[in-house]
Amino acid sequence: MGNVYAITELAGSSELGLEDAIQGAIATASKTLRNLDWFEVKEMRGHIKDGKVAHYQVVVRLGFRYDDKLPGTAPLG
Amino acid sequence: MGNVYAITELAGSSELGLEDAIQGAIATASKTLRNLDWFEVKEMRGHIKDGKVAHYQVVVRLGFRYDDKLPGTAPLG
Amino acid sequence: MGNVYAITELAGSSELGLEDAIQGAIATASKTLRNLDWFEVKEMRGHIKDGKVAHYQVVVRLGFRYDDKLPGTAPLG
Amino acid sequence: MGNVYAITELAGSSELGLEDAIQGAIATASKTLRNLDWFEVKEMRGHIKDGKVAHYQVVVRLGFRYDDKLPGTAPLG
Amino acid sequence: MGNVYAITELAGSSELGLEDAIQGAIATASKTLRNLDWFEVKEMRGHIKDGKVAHYQVVVRLGFRYDDKLPGTAPLG
Amino acid sequence: MGNVYAITELAGSSELGLEDAIQGAIATASKTLRNLDWFEVKEMRGHIKDGKVAHYQVVVRLGFRYDDKLPGTAPLG
Amino acid sequence: MGNVYAITELAGSSELGLEDAIQGAIATASKTLRNLDWFEVKEMRGHIKDGKVAHYQVVVRLGFRYDDKLPGTAPLG
Amino acid sequence: MGNVYAITELAGSSELGLEDAIQGAIATASKTLRNLDWFEVKEMRGHIKDGKVAHYQVVVRLGFRYDDKLPGTAPLG
Amino acid sequence: MGNVYAITELAGSSELGLEDAIQGAIATASKTLRNLDWFEVKEMRGHIKDGKVAHYQVVVRLGFRYDDKLPGTAPLG
Amino acid sequence: MGNVYAITELAGSSELGLEDAIQGAIATASKTLRNLDWFEVKEMRGHIKDGKVAHYQVVVRLGFRYDDKLPGTAPLG
Amino acid sequence: MGNVYAITELAGSSELGLEDAIQGAIATASKTLRNLDWFEVKEMRGHIKDGKVAHYQVVVRLGFRYDDKLPGTAPLG
Amino acid sequence: MGNVYAITELAGSSELGLEDAIQGAIATASKTLRNLDWFEVKEMRGHIKDGKVAHYQVVVRLGFRYDDKLPGTAPLG
Repeated sequence: MGNVYAITELAGSSELGLEDAIQGAIATASKTLRNLDWFEVKEMRGHIKDGKVAHYQVVVRLGFRYDDKLPGTAPLG
Repeated sequence: MGNVYAITELAGSSELGLEDAIQGAIATASKTLRNLDWFEVKEMRGHIKDGKVAHYQVVVRLGFRYDDKLPGTAPLG
Repeated sequence: MGNVYAITELAGSSELGLEDAIQGAIATASKTLRNLDWFEVKEMRGHIKDGKVAHYQVVVRLGFRYDDKLPGTAPLG
Repeated sequence: MGNVYAITELAGSSELGLEDAIQGAIATASKTLRNLDWFEVKEMRGHIKDGKVAHYQVVVRLGFRYDDKLPGTAPLG
Repeated sequence: MGNVYAITELAGSSELGLEDAIQGAIATASKTLRNLDWFEVKEMRGHIKDGKVAHYQVVVRLGFRYDDKLPGTAPLG
Repeated sequence: MGNVYAITELAGSSELGLEDAIQGAIATASKTLRNLDWFEVKEMRGHIKDGKVAHYQVVVRLGFRYDDKLPGTAPLG
Repeated sequence: MGNVYAITELAGSSELGLEDAIQGAIATASKTLRNLDWFEVKEMRGHIKDGKVAHYQVVVRLGFRYDDKLPGTAPLG
Repeated sequence: MGNVYAITELAGSSELGLEDAIQGAIATASKTLRNLDWFEVKEMRGHIKDGKVAHYQVVVRLGFRYDDKLPGTAPLG
Repeated sequence: MGNVYAITELAGSSELGLEDAIQGAIATASKTLRNLDWFEVKEMRGHIKDGKVAHYQVVVRLGFRYDDKLPGTAPLG
Repeated sequence: MGNVYAITELAGSSELGLEDAIQGAIATASKTLRNLDWFEVKEMRGHIKDGKVAHYQVVVRLGFRYDDKLPGTAPLG
Repeated sequence: MGNVYAITELAGSSELGLEDAIQGAIATASKTLRNLDWFEVKEMRGHIKDGKVAHYQVVVRLGFRYDDKLPGTAPLG
Repeated sequence: MGNVYAITELAGSSELGLEDAIQGAIATASKTLRNLDWFEVKEMRGHIKDGKVAHYQVVVRLGFRYDDKLPGTAPLG
């Protein structure tokens, strides 16, 4: 049997831009989930204030190798 | 870095109607997940018995603020 | 209020075929999640090596009854 | 070989609301089709008159167990 | 309870063009189904021969009022 | 040349339920747009507060007959 | 006017695998519908029991030549 | 900063065919909106009467250059 | 009755990048529409010249609170 | 092993109508690709000039039998 | 600058099953294209004869590393 | 007959950001294909290493004018 990956979904936000919102979601997820492997952008949106982008918000799907042998492994996402 | 939201998916069901099925999914999720913020309906379905709707089933995506500083925070969804 | 199901997403892989990749994802999930009830195929992909399929990879959505009364229940997916 | 289900599509309408439109489609179908088992909402629309909803219209897919042994079984949908 | 419509799907084809393929599907359906009311184009495709379109093929969804009171009404589609 | 319809998109919200959110969007639109004819539900979402639905939000597409002969006709949507 | 095809939708199921579920749907349909010509897989799902696939379920769209000249032709799907 | 386009959606109809329905929507829009630049077909549907197409209806998205310097510019669509 | 939002669609373009194209669409819209609240990216495209991106073009949906009490409010989008 | 088809994508355009734009794409492709077998319409769009359709543009997917034994076979699409 | 992959689309067919149809498409492509890396299933269909599957047909997207430095590299797909 | 465009699909990658990944795909394609005219973003994904984006990967569709009169023209994509 090959590797199994779990997939979870997060929305990161940033005032700076799309890449920074993606990085924020990944950085937050990596505090809890080990073995993060890939991401996929699902939605890009944001809020507007005074005729300008107040912040970008990017919904990403994150895939991580699921290792069922170790204690403390993050629960399935 | 801005707020990060995690998104999880639940299916609630109800004999009464669509809104009640949505409420059921949210009420159940709120026992485990703090900071539930928004929902989005993804599918509406149900079962039929004797020519009538036996129950409605609504699949919702739920977004909740992910607070990585507190102990006991619900795991990523 | 009716039953509530949580839905989680996994990618299983196998050198043998599509069904084996699905079974692998379910077998892994069942070590952590009780009450697995149904699955739905979302994507079918894989890797190629030397002009042959090296392994198949199937992304499945898994639904499981969420029982909020029992201790030790798997966290929401 | 397992059960086979046929799937047919109906649009019910109602002045009262979304659930009533779903019920109307199922009630009508159940006069002709035996073994109706599940439904899935595909579209929600309606007509407007004098700035109010004149009626809701819900397109549902209906699944029914197809029993090829009995005479009088509804034809495949 | 309001009107109920049944929806069926047909593919018409024509050497002449897209409209003629749609008309062919509707003309054929109208021999069996009463009360045809609307159509919706779902797919447009066709076959090629000698570097030219041999025929167009248009898949349409057809809606017809379902009148459960009359004998001889076409079965649900 | 046949009738021409313009289509505009609104999001109504309500604490009461899905139908009331749809009605709110239509009632607001009807103050500015004449000849509203049909609607189509595009998204259903909402916000959550204290483990309950705070309000439902329904995005609808609204179609209205576009009458270019009359003064004061609402601008194209 | 060219050939007209009707399209109907069935869900077959099997404990053995995806191909067997497809074959089951087609075998059942062929008892009632003549001139079955092609199929298209629309959904792949199934049920889980004791951490294993209990059965696969495949929803297929089936196309069959619609011959309006013969008596006993299956009704439009 | 480059050009900005606004996008609006119209449904034209015609007894003659698909192209004529598209032309009707564009001709009507051009009476109010300046600088129409491109269109994109979104849906093709129509009504049936006496076993024939009564009229075709085509929903198009229309893009027009938005020039915010001129008075009398059409409102955003 | 809760707030009502209107949704309009614009395409901004920029030689600099994706964020700048989004900002351009929002800046232009804000000259005519008050109460712009959120955006959602729908398409990302662009033109190529001499093997390089000549400009990025981003289609965004913009939501703005619709206030029907004030004179001079922007027409429905 | 059965036949293998390659699929390529082209956009044809025409001032005359949708069918002519499809024919143009196929005629051009047939100068380079042998064994063109089927097409599928993916998008229909066009440009507008002086309130009229300047030209229609239809994106088609083209399938052609891939014959790997012959020299000079068109490269994979 | 990182790696660049080209993506091409093929349809393989087989009397045996879904995996064999996938393998057939990849085996054929590998005679012309070097560096095939991954595949993704896009459609599953097939033909029916005498109430049985005559052959399965699977449309796959194939990704291959594009190496622009070597002579004889397969043309872009 | 109007212009014909061929459409090909590439995935570019970059450690720097989304725009750079798009530029990489276009720069590589322009070495082989003349007359590149437009691009459209289809997917945005990437890989993660040590809790950070290792590289972005953007799948783009590229359109180029197909000039069948010149020798050496790039083969259809």
